Amino acid sequence: MEDIVNTFSNNLRKYRVNKGLSQEKLAELSELHRTYISDIECGKRSISLKNIEKIANALNIETYRLFIKE
Amino acid sequence: MEDIVNTFSNNLRKYRVNKGLSQEKLAELSELHRTYISDIECGKRSISLKNIEKIANALNIETYRLFIKE
Repeated sequence: MEDIVNTFSNNLRKYRVNKGLSQEKLAELSELHRTYISDIECGKRSISLKNIEKIANALNIETYRLFIKE
Repeated sequence: MEDIVNTFSNNLRKYRVNKGLSQEKLAELSELHRTYISDIECGKRSISLKNIEKIANALNIETYRLFIKE
């Protein structure tokens, strides 16, 4: 079973790349730090609900999409 | 716009009650503390991805369902 951290980070990367956004641009749009986005995509850091919401808003997607297993 | 903390806590409570589980029972099933479950349902505490997964598993639902806005 794929774990939630992998699912979340894989989805984040997929949506970011599909929208043609660099980590820098996504960081700017979500008002988070670039290294934070990088760490989250690598599953290296914990993320709060509030920051999940900021990222989903910056990607212009519903939050739940970041949790759907492929 | 409903915020992510409200959405998550409302969904958690809804699924827990629909399954006839007390906070104590959900805590036991998810291997988390009862007061932690209570605080999360009240939106008073931050929750990690790993604990979101534990709760979804205990409720026997896909994680993304906890993030769907009603």
